[in-house]
Amino acid sequence: MSTLIDAGRVAEHNAKLQANLQADYDALAGVLARRGQDIEKLTAAAQRFAVALPSWGVGTGGTRFARFPGKGEPRNVFEKMEDCGVIHQLTRATPSVSLHFPWDKTTDPSALRQQAEGYGLGFDAVNSNTFQDQQGQEHSYKYGSLTSQDAATRAQAVAHNIECIELGKALGSKGLTVWVGDGANFPGQHNLRGALERYLDSARGIYAALPDDWQMYIEHKLFEPAFYATTIADWGTSFACAQQLGPKAKCLVDLGHHAPNTNIEMIVARLAQFGKLGGFHFNDSKYGDDDLDSGSINPFQLFLVFNELADAEQRDGAGFNPAYMLDQSHNVTDPIESLMNSAAEVQRAAVQAALVDRAALKQYQESNDALQSAQALKQAYRTDVSAILAMARLRSGGAIDPVACYRASGYREKAAEARPAKAGASSSGIV
Amino acid sequence: MSTLIDAGRVAEHNAKLQANLQADYDALAGVLARRGQDIEKLTAAAQRFAVALPSWGVGTGGTRFARFPGKGEPRNVFEKMEDCGVIHQLTRATPSVSLHFPWDKTTDPSALRQQAEGYGLGFDAVNSNTFQDQQGQEHSYKYGSLTSQDAATRAQAVAHNIECIELGKALGSKGLTVWVGDGANFPGQHNLRGALERYLDSARGIYAALPDDWQMYIEHKLFEPAFYATTIADWGTSFACAQQLGPKAKCLVDLGHHAPNTNIEMIVARLAQFGKLGGFHFNDSKYGDDDLDSGSINPFQLFLVFNELADAEQRDGAGFNPAYMLDQSHNVTDPIESLMNSAAEVQRAAVQAALVDRAALKQYQESNDALQSAQALKQAYRTDVSAILAMARLRSGGAIDPVACYRASGYREKAAEARPAKAGASSSGIV
Amino acid sequence: MSTLIDAGRVAEHNAKLQANLQADYDALAGVLARRGQDIEKLTAAAQRFAVALPSWGVGTGGTRFARFPGKGEPRNVFEKMEDCGVIHQLTRATPSVSLHFPWDKTTDPSALRQQAEGYGLGFDAVNSNTFQDQQGQEHSYKYGSLTSQDAATRAQAVAHNIECIELGKALGSKGLTVWVGDGANFPGQHNLRGALERYLDSARGIYAALPDDWQMYIEHKLFEPAFYATTIADWGTSFACAQQLGPKAKCLVDLGHHAPNTNIEMIVARLAQFGKLGGFHFNDSKYGDDDLDSGSINPFQLFLVFNELADAEQRDGAGFNPAYMLDQSHNVTDPIESLMNSAAEVQRAAVQAALVDRAALKQYQESNDALQSAQALKQAYRTDVSAILAMARLRSGGAIDPVACYRASGYREKAAEARPAKAGASSSGIV
Amino acid sequence: MSTLIDAGRVAEHNAKLQANLQADYDALAGVLARRGQDIEKLTAAAQRFAVALPSWGVGTGGTRFARFPGKGEPRNVFEKMEDCGVIHQLTRATPSVSLHFPWDKTTDPSALRQQAEGYGLGFDAVNSNTFQDQQGQEHSYKYGSLTSQDAATRAQAVAHNIECIELGKALGSKGLTVWVGDGANFPGQHNLRGALERYLDSARGIYAALPDDWQMYIEHKLFEPAFYATTIADWGTSFACAQQLGPKAKCLVDLGHHAPNTNIEMIVARLAQFGKLGGFHFNDSKYGDDDLDSGSINPFQLFLVFNELADAEQRDGAGFNPAYMLDQSHNVTDPIESLMNSAAEVQRAAVQAALVDRAALKQYQESNDALQSAQALKQAYRTDVSAILAMARLRSGGAIDPVACYRASGYREKAAEARPAKAGASSSGIV
Repeated sequence: MSTLIDAGRVAEHNAKLQANLQADYDALAGVLARRGQDIEKLTAAAQRFAVALPSWGVGTGGTRFARFPGKGEPRNVFEKMEDCGVIHQLTRATPSVSLHFPWDKTTDPSALRQQAEGYGLGFDAVNSNTFQDQQGQEHSYKYGSLTSQDAATRAQAVAHNIECIELGKALGSKGLTVWVGDGANFPGQHNLRGALERYLDSARGIYAALPDDWQMYIEHKLFEPAFYATTIADWGTSFACAQQLGPKAKCLVDLGHHAPNTNIEMIVARLAQFGKLGGFHFNDSKYGDDDLDSGSINPFQLFLVFNELADAEQRDGAGFNPAYMLDQSHNVTDPIESLMNSAAEVQRAAVQAALVDRAALKQYQESNDALQSAQALKQAYRTDVSAILAMARLRSGGAIDPVACYRASGYREKAAEARPAKAGASSSGIV
Repeated sequence: MSTLIDAGRVAEHNAKLQANLQADYDALAGVLARRGQDIEKLTAAAQRFAVALPSWGVGTGGTRFARFPGKGEPRNVFEKMEDCGVIHQLTRATPSVSLHFPWDKTTDPSALRQQAEGYGLGFDAVNSNTFQDQQGQEHSYKYGSLTSQDAATRAQAVAHNIECIELGKALGSKGLTVWVGDGANFPGQHNLRGALERYLDSARGIYAALPDDWQMYIEHKLFEPAFYATTIADWGTSFACAQQLGPKAKCLVDLGHHAPNTNIEMIVARLAQFGKLGGFHFNDSKYGDDDLDSGSINPFQLFLVFNELADAEQRDGAGFNPAYMLDQSHNVTDPIESLMNSAAEVQRAAVQAALVDRAALKQYQESNDALQSAQALKQAYRTDVSAILAMARLRSGGAIDPVACYRASGYREKAAEARPAKAGASSSGIV
Repeated sequence: MSTLIDAGRVAEHNAKLQANLQADYDALAGVLARRGQDIEKLTAAAQRFAVALPSWGVGTGGTRFARFPGKGEPRNVFEKMEDCGVIHQLTRATPSVSLHFPWDKTTDPSALRQQAEGYGLGFDAVNSNTFQDQQGQEHSYKYGSLTSQDAATRAQAVAHNIECIELGKALGSKGLTVWVGDGANFPGQHNLRGALERYLDSARGIYAALPDDWQMYIEHKLFEPAFYATTIADWGTSFACAQQLGPKAKCLVDLGHHAPNTNIEMIVARLAQFGKLGGFHFNDSKYGDDDLDSGSINPFQLFLVFNELADAEQRDGAGFNPAYMLDQSHNVTDPIESLMNSAAEVQRAAVQAALVDRAALKQYQESNDALQSAQALKQAYRTDVSAILAMARLRSGGAIDPVACYRASGYREKAAEARPAKAGASSSGIV
Repeated sequence: MSTLIDAGRVAEHNAKLQANLQADYDALAGVLARRGQDIEKLTAAAQRFAVALPSWGVGTGGTRFARFPGKGEPRNVFEKMEDCGVIHQLTRATPSVSLHFPWDKTTDPSALRQQAEGYGLGFDAVNSNTFQDQQGQEHSYKYGSLTSQDAATRAQAVAHNIECIELGKALGSKGLTVWVGDGANFPGQHNLRGALERYLDSARGIYAALPDDWQMYIEHKLFEPAFYATTIADWGTSFACAQQLGPKAKCLVDLGHHAPNTNIEMIVARLAQFGKLGGFHFNDSKYGDDDLDSGSINPFQLFLVFNELADAEQRDGAGFNPAYMLDQSHNVTDPIESLMNSAAEVQRAAVQAALVDRAALKQYQESNDALQSAQALKQAYRTDVSAILAMARLRSGGAIDPVACYRASGYREKAAEARPAKAGASSSGIV
């Protein structure tokens, strides 16, 4: 594997921190042993953990008001892969990348695949984009794409999704994520039922082109860019559509796409129960689709999501295999740093969920001991598994402290030199 | 039909207001005619409109903090029927009553039926109650009813629902509304999936006892009395359960049972599209399940719900026939007055929705004319149809101004004398 | 006054509709007379009503995902003034324009003033912009402007605001609206108190430069562009800051800048009571700062806001004079049409609020008659005052149906020819 | 000090757990030492921590739908003190009790004081109750108390508050918490400004009776029991009122009394900055005023609140001394267990906040290093300080594991025998 940061630097970084890490790890091992738990099992689980990177996440994000670019932003998909390569090199937890078309379209997919393999990266689900108009596009999506009133516009959107499948096939992807911003800004603008009928009709066209070993992930979102009624606004609609389409259609849960106060972990439980949980877009939020770093606002909620995932895994075994992906907008941080940290936060929640004593929990639940049921989760959640995560990285060839190692490497400064800013808008597409 | 308020008094009331009403009605008829609409069709529609009364709504409501009873509260189901009789006498829009068991259980259902018929009243869906413990009840619902960990408790709750069906049959009801408060106050307290599995298992037991011409209405609610996770919390769960149970199971939409910012009219459209819209509990709210008077907080939302209903009716014809019921808590008003007004507010929304020029709306929608689409709804909504509602009441034998007529009748004062307050808690059950 | 749409066309438009309008007006006059109200007073009030236009609102808006421009968008402040001129010509309700700097900066303010006067327009409060970086700007606002950690950045932001005052003086403005997006995306990113201390320090610098007859409007907003903590997030903070600054500092209420479920009319009442209600940015929203057309989502709320304003006016008399402005983002409509309609919606709410029988309301309130208190507001709100608004426009020289008249005029088509699209981003600044 | 649970049993309990605790403590000490932190300082801080108990919290709570009582509920204030005594005996973190009148009124305050002292308990702020009608009360609070339209009702409510002060003086309290549910359920029911004017007038009457060394805590709440407009609904109103009343009036923050998505820690920062932060009612919530156990839903938020408190303490020194109190409703747990756990959760947040490296944080903030700023908080928050809390309890004479010790003691079973259930409603007042 080729490394983007000199392997020697990483080794040097680790050497400085290793003694302290070992001491912290041993201390934690003792605490866990006194509770009857084996740290090594957890470290192994941490090493197995993987979450995909969003290609668009390595550029600086923005809002409708402004975008404040950072230095050395990637200008094309190959440079995005470099940044993803760095993240995976140091974290060892992000072995795949999710591409977004047409932003990441290349005329040379095999070169892209080869570059990725060099960094130890594969390709996760591909994403279509019918929420923007592209230069030279025949029909505008101003009034909708898969739900458009106009048959030709719908056909264009379906064709784009099918093209995404083709592009994905060439890269080894096995999934297509379909998010459409389609909806209405005014009561009356849409016939609400008519819009969903058109959506389903279009989606059937895409589904028909899906290879047998692919999944189609339907992503719902409460609002934005539509501000009165979004056609695929909630998990109920997503679920009903996935049912209509067939077994390869599943629901994708983005943690920021729900109404205020929604119990997201319960949606996860419902979709798992009814066989339609396809995967996740991880991020965090306080208000709307804020796309903040995973676990930065409500880390307990992230743990509770993984608690449901651990429960589903225990029930459904190997067949239960939802896709994990980060989907964040990094407006005030270095995107590489945020993605490294966020991957670790999701990994942390997974390890903490693995710490839950499920037999004891079941017993508490069955005896209506609400207090101890809650404490069974809390004890796992409270456990500081940082040393486990760091040890997993070290053992897998990553960095004990990825952000510190990255900063010391000077990667960003070199990127700033190598990638002078393009005039105009963000290359990553989404501001 | 026997009348609870002297018919002569009503006639006298109407006589005083009729000239002005006729003038207002004629003025509106002219306005509508200039828009190409026939007021008589709307008045006829208003006369056909019906919404059921909740037996528990005629008592004063309350909160967990306090209940401030009013004068002359009904102390049993027969007195509740009297109050409902008054409401229907004056509004002519509430020809049925929804009972709640065991609160409204009587040993003499035929007497109750006879009394009701005397007032021109029938019986709408019956409601079971497994969110409270009754004196002498064997198993407590403290930790759940249909979802209880304990098989005997679940069986007791199922049996109670089946008893409700039997009681309903004796009264001529054709539906059972099942609302359970079951849920958890702590993360971990419930295995979220296990709780729904038990719910479904219990619900199948109830469904099996449902007569062929009955419907089972599943009512979801975001929170309260459970404050972390409610088993039937959203329309997605309600919908999935209704699918699991079978064609007689449908979803009931209570306007106050959703997360903040939820687009409720879209839920109505979705359930109609997928054949699972069972009915409504009408009320209004600003924060949670506030159970305020229908249309008092967001009347445009109520109109938009009826706009969806009118659309569904146009699409699905006579087969589309959801149940309409008021479900409110009257804490600071005379419940009879609030229910009369609220029935009129729901009726108003239905008439305004009938005013929408659907052909024009369709055309605006198809040409992506968002502004005029919105205005097509707004023009209908802005039309003050008060004169139509009053004329419909007058023609059907009710009062032009039900609240004024009721106040003048002295009914409440007489009730206060006839029904001295019972010591202790509310007879209506729900505070 | 020069007119942008041929006066003859407007007259022709009115001639066709006038007979029907007169009939509708007379019908309404009768209805009101039967309630003891004089339609002429209301029509006069409607004619006096005025709300300012936002210069940035005449361009097509967008979201962080995309902007779908319309035809003939204005490319500079002079073209924006033309569009505003058309709006005022047809509605007669928008006699002033609020400019945004540096977007609307011109080297020839007297030419701009002269142009405006030609259209019957004046200049409302000016707006500063420190939420974007401008080409060639020395210090970036990426991490804040008035609250920046860096003294030079703060000084730059203060200087820009002072420049806005100077520009405003040259145009005859009497107010400065200060909205900053400053805030944090992560817990810990800001010392919350430190950030507000810096804000206050900067704001004092601006306040010191304010002419004696000017007002400084502090605009709060819950979130966006900051997604964890916005420095001026709520009315409490805005109020405390206005107190700290002095009597010329007041609070501005934007209807879309509040937490879910917030009772906005109560905030209006509070600020009025404590002497700090400066003005409004009118728009509507369902989820966040959706910037939808005024009254399009919750028209009753808009009425309730004006009900408070009418109450305050009655209490405080001529001294009570808050600034009214539209602030909307038009993503799927012709901005000129949306602004014309929205001005009428705000005007409608004002006229409906004037219809409230305040003496009766007071009596109902004093006797705790909640039901009739509510009905006193509802009766006013339900009254369809469309004919009053149209008659007010007609009498003031506008169009009976501004949208129809505008569409018939071909103004947009001519603009599309005269204003070929600029390559790249929106000229209006905010997408 | 008299102990309610045999001291020998506690010692025995501790003896069994002490070796493991010591090992865990030493492990943590090592981890902290490697970060340059001294565990002993934190343990000392944990020992100093104190939070008051709500007398009404030791009874089982409920909702408007039902209350499911537990065994052995206290039937009067003396029995409530016993339960509070147990909590303090085992946790050593709850040395005072907050009483609620008239529920806790006694004719023998000195006996009560003596009993309390015996358990090592003092008396925190007293609470008035004008949200319920008491048997034999002359004027009803159905339509308001301090804001009532009726002068005699307002005077009665003021007199009750003054009586509370007198009762509190006899017990050694130094504060009065004033929460009123006053508000409106309908738009129009209240003149919003008039209601606040009456509130202020009444509050001035109470304030005038406040001893010089007392504080008056104004508690705001978004909604419930009023569902349209609550007079003291938000911190802005609370703050404005506290300003109007004078220096002894401060604002009380209940964690469950805010609009969805509100940044509560920022409210804490604002009130601290402007000198009006009086104290807290700690609990947790997901939807409304759910009154769940502190830290059970969003523990990171609780930490962020304490992070602000630590910042304020550092800035304002000894003068900064807000009152801490638990205020929870225990519907499905043993209230004693919930209160013990909750006291520890609040204590945990305080200790974690003390772990923040404020100098490093400041440096990160000043260099706009959002990522490391956030990590500085997260590292402290992630630290599992359970061993510190347990050691603090042990050293202060409490139990290492209070819940386990309490369960083993058989206290509840003995209470169940000694305190047979009263027929009818809850003795604790609030269901």
